Amino acid sequence: MSGPRGKRSKAAPIRRVAVVATGVIGRSWIVVFARAGCDVAVFDANPEQLDAAMAWFRAERKALRDAGVLTKREARAWKERVRAAASLADAVADADYVQESGPEQLEVKQALLAEIDALAPARTIIGSSTSAIDMTEIAAGLPGASRCIVAHPVNPPHVVPAVEILGGVETTRQVVKRTIAFHKAIGQVPVLLKRFTPGFLLNRMQAALIREAVDLVRSGVADVEAVDDSIRAGLGLRWALMGPFGVANTNADGGVREYFTRYGGAYHMLWDDLSTAVRFDPQLVDQLGRDADRVLGTDRQGQRTWRDRLVTAIRQHKIEDPAPSPRARR
Amino acid sequence: MSGPRGKRSKAAPIRRVAVVATGVIGRSWIVVFARAGCDVAVFDANPEQLDAAMAWFRAERKALRDAGVLTKREARAWKERVRAAASLADAVADADYVQESGPEQLEVKQALLAEIDALAPARTIIGSSTSAIDMTEIAAGLPGASRCIVAHPVNPPHVVPAVEILGGVETTRQVVKRTIAFHKAIGQVPVLLKRFTPGFLLNRMQAALIREAVDLVRSGVADVEAVDDSIRAGLGLRWALMGPFGVANTNADGGVREYFTRYGGAYHMLWDDLSTAVRFDPQLVDQLGRDADRVLGTDRQGQRTWRDRLVTAIRQHKIEDPAPSPRARR
Repeated sequence: MSGPRGKRSKAAPIRRVAVVATGVIGRSWIVVFARAGCDVAVFDANPEQLDAAMAWFRAERKALRDAGVLTKREARAWKERVRAAASLADAVADADYVQESGPEQLEVKQALLAEIDALAPARTIIGSSTSAIDMTEIAAGLPGASRCIVAHPVNPPHVVPAVEILGGVETTRQVVKRTIAFHKAIGQVPVLLKRFTPGFLLNRMQAALIREAVDLVRSGVADVEAVDDSIRAGLGLRWALMGPFGVANTNADGGVREYFTRYGGAYHMLWDDLSTAVRFDPQLVDQLGRDADRVLGTDRQGQRTWRDRLVTAIRQHKIEDPAPSPRARR
Repeated sequence: MSGPRGKRSKAAPIRRVAVVATGVIGRSWIVVFARAGCDVAVFDANPEQLDAAMAWFRAERKALRDAGVLTKREARAWKERVRAAASLADAVADADYVQESGPEQLEVKQALLAEIDALAPARTIIGSSTSAIDMTEIAAGLPGASRCIVAHPVNPPHVVPAVEILGGVETTRQVVKRTIAFHKAIGQVPVLLKRFTPGFLLNRMQAALIREAVDLVRSGVADVEAVDDSIRAGLGLRWALMGPFGVANTNADGGVREYFTRYGGAYHMLWDDLSTAVRFDPQLVDQLGRDADRVLGTDRQGQRTWRDRLVTAIRQHKIEDPAPSPRARR
């Protein structure tokens, strides 16, 4: 970190990270970066939220230590790497990379990125966890718009590794490349979008599936339990391993080409039949909520802890017994 | 199995099964039933297809034996339980349950079920693997329409356990109940539909997701690799454990009700933006096929074998470390 800034190569490895805004997503990023060996400065404009995030991180670290996932030495290293910053300026002053996870409102994001842009060194990449907003809009007019980029995770990022990567119009190719390389290096799975679309990839595909799921219950075809069963004991088991194209590829001996040639017409018929009219209203939301509580119970924290444990086990299997195609090993 | 037919209780356990028509789905059912300890008579009108299915079953049994999944004794028991039948009459003559997996055409299914209905004892339940056709149509006019029922699996059923269950208008509640109980007893996950809808649950939700996946590639937002990554390293990891309602339930402290109340508006906006105009044409199918081959390679059998191994491992984890809610343990 010594030497004049101008001489610093732009491709220097990212070692110092700032986590800015620490809700459920922000605090989870702390684990991602600490686990990867980064120095992490954590900041939230709300001191209570910052305290809560640091407390959550300590509890997470302790749980991993108690479970034997972390050695004593590793647990200590995690502790030493992560600090609560006294101010935004303090957090980003020496950061190679900032991960911003503030509220999902354009004006809030614009103000926050403007502040970060004014405070962070020229080399710093500014990533945003935004799930919905175009970086072109967030960074419009910023002197450092070229270093601003969307890095949208799945909840929670320290468990589920996919991260959608997308620059704004001003973002340089170099920043896109370095952000992808960084997220790969820290064990995430960067997913590159070529242009903006509302909801990016993940939320669009999730919304498509949820619309149909909700409509199947609403229209009386099946109940919440049956719909969930058909995913977790059916389609989801394959999707944990292969995306929709990977599944199509294994469903016909001639692969994706043969599958869509043979079943294209059947898909067209189904597509035309899928609901587009369903809307959430208080009565529908209440019905879904009541059914879900009845089937799932209300111990959501227990369900999250279980989910995190099992997702981690699935990822471990994929590491130990990798997919035959190197480019499908994620 | 002795005693006059009339004295036989309708609720007698199902032990003898006939597998009729042995394509990829039919032959996989042989493993499901043999593994569960049923006596299995296998028939296909095409003797070569029947031979191929029996050869596939032997190879599968040998692979499981070689991998140590089956003991020598179990492997022998599998062998003893399964036989190629000389005719349809021979296959179904003593069956408690028939699983029909013939070609997906109404007239073919109608003819096949009419034959089975004429040949099978009165007690026999006739299940069909149809993925698309209403049992009301298939069984229309059959003397035994009341015992005909859809039991539609995911490919391959001996690996992925969900089975969609749906009677026709004539099917008795008793047949529905017994079919559900049977599939549960043999280790599958029966999913009850309350009424017919094209594509049932599974193919509708899959079609909704695939439409969006295809459109994201077609419209240049992302490539095949990125779309698949976002599922297998993102949404799919949660969906292997929880359906869409289970995921919503963990994404807000107040569960499904709070989640859809808070994000309902965002979903409405995304729903209105999702593509409904995409269609497969030869050029699009060729593009998808080329991209998929480039990313995944063309060793589809290797990919299937890997998928089956990993899905089995995920299911094993769910057995050893079950979901907190008893009704979410599938």
